[in-house]
Amino acid sequence: MAAEAGAGERILLGHGSGGRLYRDLVRDVFVAHFANPVLERLDDAAALAAPGRRIALTTDAHVVQPLVFRGGDIGRLAVAGTVNDLATAAARPVGLAAAFVIEEGFELARLHELCASMAATAVEADVPIVTGDTKVVQRGAADGLFITTTGVGEIVVDHDVSATAVRAGDELLLSGTLGDHALAVLAARGDFGFVLDVESDCAPLWGLVEAALAAGGEDVVFLRDPTRGGLATVLAELAEETGLGIDLDEEALPVSAAVRSACELLGYDPLALANEGKMVVAVRPGRAAAVLEALRGRPEGARAARIGAVTAEHPGLVALRTPFGTRRVIDMPVGELLPRIC
Amino acid sequence: MAAEAGAGERILLGHGSGGRLYRDLVRDVFVAHFANPVLERLDDAAALAAPGRRIALTTDAHVVQPLVFRGGDIGRLAVAGTVNDLATAAARPVGLAAAFVIEEGFELARLHELCASMAATAVEADVPIVTGDTKVVQRGAADGLFITTTGVGEIVVDHDVSATAVRAGDELLLSGTLGDHALAVLAARGDFGFVLDVESDCAPLWGLVEAALAAGGEDVVFLRDPTRGGLATVLAELAEETGLGIDLDEEALPVSAAVRSACELLGYDPLALANEGKMVVAVRPGRAAAVLEALRGRPEGARAARIGAVTAEHPGLVALRTPFGTRRVIDMPVGELLPRIC
Repeated sequence: MAAEAGAGERILLGHGSGGRLYRDLVRDVFVAHFANPVLERLDDAAALAAPGRRIALTTDAHVVQPLVFRGGDIGRLAVAGTVNDLATAAARPVGLAAAFVIEEGFELARLHELCASMAATAVEADVPIVTGDTKVVQRGAADGLFITTTGVGEIVVDHDVSATAVRAGDELLLSGTLGDHALAVLAARGDFGFVLDVESDCAPLWGLVEAALAAGGEDVVFLRDPTRGGLATVLAELAEETGLGIDLDEEALPVSAAVRSACELLGYDPLALANEGKMVVAVRPGRAAAVLEALRGRPEGARAARIGAVTAEHPGLVALRTPFGTRRVIDMPVGELLPRIC
Repeated sequence: MAAEAGAGERILLGHGSGGRLYRDLVRDVFVAHFANPVLERLDDAAALAAPGRRIALTTDAHVVQPLVFRGGDIGRLAVAGTVNDLATAAARPVGLAAAFVIEEGFELARLHELCASMAATAVEADVPIVTGDTKVVQRGAADGLFITTTGVGEIVVDHDVSATAVRAGDELLLSGTLGDHALAVLAARGDFGFVLDVESDCAPLWGLVEAALAAGGEDVVFLRDPTRGGLATVLAELAEETGLGIDLDEEALPVSAAVRSACELLGYDPLALANEGKMVVAVRPGRAAAVLEALRGRPEGARAARIGAVTAEHPGLVALRTPFGTRRVIDMPVGELLPRIC
């Protein structure tokens, strides 16, 4: 089982060396928590079985602050974010690599907790963490802990799942509510003058995507997780890349009551807020019902909805139809009003 | 061709968002420099052709300070370090992922220079950078720039290349001089009171390893790059993992005159210093000459030497035979006297 840190033990610069202290850290923390035969070999490169199909590769640096928030922490985020990026390529996760940059003086007990969270999320996503690296920088040269996770996956479909495959008439589904992650992180920072009952949606979504692919087959043509920049960015990019328009139905967008009222109070747009456990799925016309049913059959897709469709009208633009029958154009946010949410 | 930054342009927090500024940064810097068809798709995960064989996965966070030193920079290091870790698994590099953590205010022109260096090193190593990620953190929350590079490779041999394969009698080769990288970085910090004529050896070594494998075939049984912790750590680990002893011939160790005299002056041991362009190769008895010839046939292996052998005597220990006929035991360094050299 995973070892525990003595009270008050902290990371030293020497833990980042290639020598004895480094090896102790790797064995007592990373190998202890992420236990699997490939990692335990401690080779500089991990060997994985030959995938029969095309492989997907994705990487994400995680710098979220604070490190722990309602519904998750940087460890859970680091695994889920990478698994979800693989899922957007219809790729089953095969192995993860984790690189840590740690500030000198970081508490060893916290590192254990965050690695335990990574390990639990990796088990949930059924993917081993097979290799890693650790660097320690002097006090003040980093903000506690950064984790970069890279994933290799095996692409399980032969058809093209990307913006290139999207055509006018395709229907757009969203697997659940918007904005939970961004607001949970802001709440954990204590940025609000009120208590916010929101939990991050941070979760690995390969199981959900696998269910959608099983139900929709070749008619699932596009998958994208609306993280930084939110749904607005995903759809603006889709419109730009396809040269088609997007019609979005405001009433159909799933948003929790807590997020809705916080957004009204603070002037945020749920469409621009980051999510870490949601997937946008485009399907061929007439296939929405079957795929929606598959999404809703899983806990992380319980609030899945059909949110709109791709159209040959207003090319390159995302139009939001309001309950009052008016339409407004949704633009990609220029910058980020909320830095370091992932 | 790669775009250039306007004078004085700096990284803003908004460059780390998922929105318009982020996309501009990705296109104008990363895609411009690393240009290749897979990256240009800008998918969240890059799709690579199905490798016919087992794959290798490795990751390294790079936090070197200063970012530029004689013989290299963090960009060259980030590519070479990952290619070399793949090479230790006898894996031809197939694709790299690069994740950047950038401090707000970092000069855009410097980012261009470092990405140009990464791109040139990737061309030299014949591997595309196929996916990436960027996070921007507030001023003071990171030390300029950290780059985490992850590599996927295709393992080109069927036999086991690892400590497990090593037996008593195997001969040990080293591809060139020791200590150049560590001393070049220290010199660039201005830590010395004198001028040091040393250049980092930082270089991608897949070509060198491929040549060794071509010459030695199944008789090449172990490959390891002596980075952090130096040759001392590689050999101490090898002795520990195999339960065998290592005999090392001090006179045979290649060390440049400049490194040797700097080490004498400063009290450093070249065996404990980091290298970023060297490979330790273990071969079956009698095969050293053929593999040495192959190593020396390449510029990065010009000073390759047979440095010792594996022995059933003194199990678990690395013994250095001095020119005076005495022997001393080489221990793994405990911590790192030189932080942030890679």
